[in-house]
Amino acid sequence: MTSALPQPARRGRPGYDLTSLLAVAVEVFNERGYDGTSMEDLARRLGIAKSAIYHHVSGKEQLLRLALDRSTAGLGAVADQARALDAPAIARLEHLVRGSVEVLQADLPYVTLLLRVRGNTATERAALARRRGFDRFVAQLVREAEADGDIRPDVESAVTARLLFGMVNSIVEWYRPRRGADPAPLADAVCAIAFDGLRRR
Amino acid sequence: MTSALPQPARRGRPGYDLTSLLAVAVEVFNERGYDGTSMEDLARRLGIAKSAIYHHVSGKEQLLRLALDRSTAGLGAVADQARALDAPAIARLEHLVRGSVEVLQADLPYVTLLLRVRGNTATERAALARRRGFDRFVAQLVREAEADGDIRPDVESAVTARLLFGMVNSIVEWYRPRRGADPAPLADAVCAIAFDGLRRR
Repeated sequence: MTSALPQPARRGRPGYDLTSLLAVAVEVFNERGYDGTSMEDLARRLGIAKSAIYHHVSGKEQLLRLALDRSTAGLGAVADQARALDAPAIARLEHLVRGSVEVLQADLPYVTLLLRVRGNTATERAALARRRGFDRFVAQLVREAEADGDIRPDVESAVTARLLFGMVNSIVEWYRPRRGADPAPLADAVCAIAFDGLRRR
Repeated sequence: MTSALPQPARRGRPGYDLTSLLAVAVEVFNERGYDGTSMEDLARRLGIAKSAIYHHVSGKEQLLRLALDRSTAGLGAVADQARALDAPAIARLEHLVRGSVEVLQADLPYVTLLLRVRGNTATERAALARRRGFDRFVAQLVREAEADGDIRPDVESAVTARLLFGMVNSIVEWYRPRRGADPAPLADAVCAIAFDGLRRR
């Protein structure tokens, strides 16, 4: 396809640094699936030669690793904050939910990729292991908050933990960031519904 | 791979009817992705010749259509019940949530396939259109219940609808049916948390 509009990023010698190259790679991985994406596909989308990609990374698995590292680092930082918080488990859990929604909004394509990982490569299995560690932390906070009498005891704590983060993670299916929009309302909405329910009282 | 165990279903001339053939096809679609599955892959998994599959269906898109018809029919029936219910919108919404969780549990692989559809073929686009109709009905019930004063007004109704069914749909990620297990507790858990929140009061 040709276009009459100027496309400076695709002309001449486009100046991709690793960050912008990674952003495009993640976009393509999310569209075609990681397994369905070749270095050829990435080079075509970037409008550069494959050799120019190899100047930055050893191959597509390194791009995947960098992308998954970014999302697990974001979620890991939120978990560390929640762990360090001098507050009851339910407040730490709410901090974790709020922070996770914010990471998801800020790094949407990276978290989307993380949530679709199926474990076909060592890189994917390492990311899955970190996700499982995060999920265990959520389940532990739910158990503690239940022991404190702050969370309803009629639902199994493992199910509560899964439904709670099922709601959080489902945001990647429909949320599309608007430039300059305040991210707080969505985190508020998730916390309001998850902790206090959608029924008016 | 060979096995010393008897595998009657793979020996001789296995008697697949359309229902059991479809069940295996859906399993393979969910594992490899619809686009990544060939008739060859299906024949191999079924342990029969491709021609034996063509005896039942015209090709893999017909298998996809039958599978998606099954899940949209199940969810459509629940929506019809909720529509017909002589009750306030919030009760109809709760009926819809409960019924959807039950369809999801009963037809897990079929609903999983439906939720992963991306719209690459006419069959997928038709299923997506039915999903959107279902989602519009959810949003409408949320708006009505909010107008009745039964649902919290501080979250945008479209966001409430998405988060609610985000929680419901997330069940496909982890739920694995156990033979003979009562499906009611999971629907109860989803309704308890979604409508009344996980905080104890």
